[in-house]
Amino acid sequence: MVDGVLSDLQINDVVHATIRQSVAVAQKLEEQTGEPFIHLEFGIPGLPACRYGVEAQIEALRGGIASVYPNIAGCADLKQAGSRFVKAFLNLDVAPEGIVPTVGSMQGSYNLMLEASQLTQGKDTILFINPGFPVQRQQTRILGIKSEAFDIYDYRADRLRDKLEEYLQKGNIAAMIYSNPNNPAWICLTEDELRIIGECATKYDAIVIEDLAYMGMDFRQDLGTPGEPPYQATVARYTDNYVLMLSGSKIFSYAGERIAVMAFSDKLYRREYDELRRRYNIARCGDAFVLTYLYANSSGTAHSAQIALAAMMNAAVEGRYNFVHETAEYARRAARTKEIFVRNGFHIVYDRDMDQPVSDGFFYTVGRHGLTDEQLIKRLLRCGIVAIALVTTGSNQNGLRVCVSRINTDSEFEELDRRLQLFNTLTD
Amino acid sequence: MVDGVLSDLQINDVVHATIRQSVAVAQKLEEQTGEPFIHLEFGIPGLPACRYGVEAQIEALRGGIASVYPNIAGCADLKQAGSRFVKAFLNLDVAPEGIVPTVGSMQGSYNLMLEASQLTQGKDTILFINPGFPVQRQQTRILGIKSEAFDIYDYRADRLRDKLEEYLQKGNIAAMIYSNPNNPAWICLTEDELRIIGECATKYDAIVIEDLAYMGMDFRQDLGTPGEPPYQATVARYTDNYVLMLSGSKIFSYAGERIAVMAFSDKLYRREYDELRRRYNIARCGDAFVLTYLYANSSGTAHSAQIALAAMMNAAVEGRYNFVHETAEYARRAARTKEIFVRNGFHIVYDRDMDQPVSDGFFYTVGRHGLTDEQLIKRLLRCGIVAIALVTTGSNQNGLRVCVSRINTDSEFEELDRRLQLFNTLTD
Repeated sequence: MVDGVLSDLQINDVVHATIRQSVAVAQKLEEQTGEPFIHLEFGIPGLPACRYGVEAQIEALRGGIASVYPNIAGCADLKQAGSRFVKAFLNLDVAPEGIVPTVGSMQGSYNLMLEASQLTQGKDTILFINPGFPVQRQQTRILGIKSEAFDIYDYRADRLRDKLEEYLQKGNIAAMIYSNPNNPAWICLTEDELRIIGECATKYDAIVIEDLAYMGMDFRQDLGTPGEPPYQATVARYTDNYVLMLSGSKIFSYAGERIAVMAFSDKLYRREYDELRRRYNIARCGDAFVLTYLYANSSGTAHSAQIALAAMMNAAVEGRYNFVHETAEYARRAARTKEIFVRNGFHIVYDRDMDQPVSDGFFYTVGRHGLTDEQLIKRLLRCGIVAIALVTTGSNQNGLRVCVSRINTDSEFEELDRRLQLFNTLTD
Repeated sequence: MVDGVLSDLQINDVVHATIRQSVAVAQKLEEQTGEPFIHLEFGIPGLPACRYGVEAQIEALRGGIASVYPNIAGCADLKQAGSRFVKAFLNLDVAPEGIVPTVGSMQGSYNLMLEASQLTQGKDTILFINPGFPVQRQQTRILGIKSEAFDIYDYRADRLRDKLEEYLQKGNIAAMIYSNPNNPAWICLTEDELRIIGECATKYDAIVIEDLAYMGMDFRQDLGTPGEPPYQATVARYTDNYVLMLSGSKIFSYAGERIAVMAFSDKLYRREYDELRRRYNIARCGDAFVLTYLYANSSGTAHSAQIALAAMMNAAVEGRYNFVHETAEYARRAARTKEIFVRNGFHIVYDRDMDQPVSDGFFYTVGRHGLTDEQLIKRLLRCGIVAIALVTTGSNQNGLRVCVSRINTDSEFEELDRRLQLFNTLTD
């Protein structure tokens, strides 16, 4: 039946199936069997939306905001709130000017990479520090932007510098992009590694795009007290060449409303580029991002969602809403399912940050010695479990990404255990 | 003082100032003089948002929608409502599958032009039937897509076919784009002209992107009764190679929430392109638009805004909300201000559709014999009136675009009259 569905959906290579294809495979098998799958493939928030956002958004709509174009640079409230948020949880000084809302971080990275590739003649390539979110690489393909990538698995700590320089020395890297905590591996770059990235970015004049979609979710320490250390680790301490991507989707479980902010360093926001002046008659990097790229892409992002994010950030900054404690729920689910996987003979693929085991969180990675990715995925499908292969995230490792957001109740954990026991009885 | 502000804002050529630059000039002059301007430059809805949308959006947020990623192809409710809306007001059959929400029509045209330019090797150029919305042309510049354009002023009726064929015969035109009613000229293409465009699109296999931002607002006839003629004129009656852009911004005064739908003809949605299969492994035009272009651009559009647009379209289809009568307010303002301009010595530039005077509506065009655009704009600024030059919209005509959305009260009309009388006393 699995082979039949793959064939129906024209998926020749299950290992390279995208997230959406994997969803479709599971749905079709659910229809045919009447049996619900355990969904580990898709990173949907598994928590209710932060109520401070919902309340503020409703109030804004009642006040008539729906007819009013948002300021293309972002509502003043949100720009101010973003600046406060970055100060409270990252201990960074970013002027409100540099806080720019986007239609999710998806629109942010799309336009940041496009702009980065147009800033300087000859700097036309984006470097992906993988594994990563597959769609970001796809963005460069759609836009016709060149890209390079490597898997950080073999290049942790000091080895990272040589690897980065190998690419950066060529002089064609416009920007580097990675997520931290990492989707899919949940590795967290150490301060030493972030220093290396920052120093390389400055030395070779490349912009670092740091995706903080899962900010604060390194649960090995409590990063949730505003204005007090420990703070979320960030490359911003080591270079001025940065833009941070702060999405409301996971931090505030606000994925439905497609709202994020980009935080430009003051220096980068104000930096002038001759190429921007020549092409668009707007020289400042941040102004061009807003008035050229975002304006032409969507003329801003939904007004009421901006008000929602401003309210949620302010609630977090003022200690009324602890987003780290709320999302710690994911760590509980990760710990419990990891134990089930390991007990049934699986192992964690990206298992350590230097001397520490990786944090529990939204994602982790599992592999199974002796099985190819194709065997692993197909046997799991036969047991009613769906997940995507690490290779689709730019990883060179065998294994799968597991997302814990949709597995929650005791009976779901027990069912996972039962199905993995079943898995151990299968042969091809 | 006008020259000082232009110099401060680094605007060397006031005739080519963008909308946003013109806004900035007026703001600065308002600050310096303490005197409010008459704003004719910016197309903001001047009416409250349709309450059916606001109510539905609030209810959806209360129901917890903010945490739930929208289906990337659009909410089922909105796809259904869009299909009904197109049937009721355009008398077209478009399957719900072909109704795809975007972050305003801005995101729609951006991605439609990008996709169109990638469908067929050699077809890499977008043809703009001008005058038009300046940002659409800017979208192709940002994306590095080739474009051609002509001003329709001298090519109405039968002359249109030869002009179109002059471009299309080269074989490199991927898509044609125009708005109807036209921003900025408020000309409405006749059925004959639309037939010509449609026949050419079929003959030369080019996609027509028809921007219906001001749908129903040809107030010379009442296009507001669902399911009954007369219907909004559309190229869709003359070709299957079309995508219509239906924005909530002006029709429902919902600009703040950045919500529109694209309506693909059934045939185009399902058409397979080898280039799409090769590049993205998704061959169908509509599927690729959704799963490749929109997914990578913003992962969909705000969930609650989709629910709002669905509710507003349903209210219109069911006769509970007459968007044509609501927006007819703009025609009243246009008629009144046109009379003031003409009485003070101005003339309407794009004044006729064949034998008929253009409709009153959201925009119109004015010129003044004997004055260059620069003289005209600067003298108006000196009188506290701001508007953009037609040349920035791809027109070859002298004159200005006037938007009536922000002029409303009796005292504002009287003030316009007073300032135009003052204008007539000025010399350079």
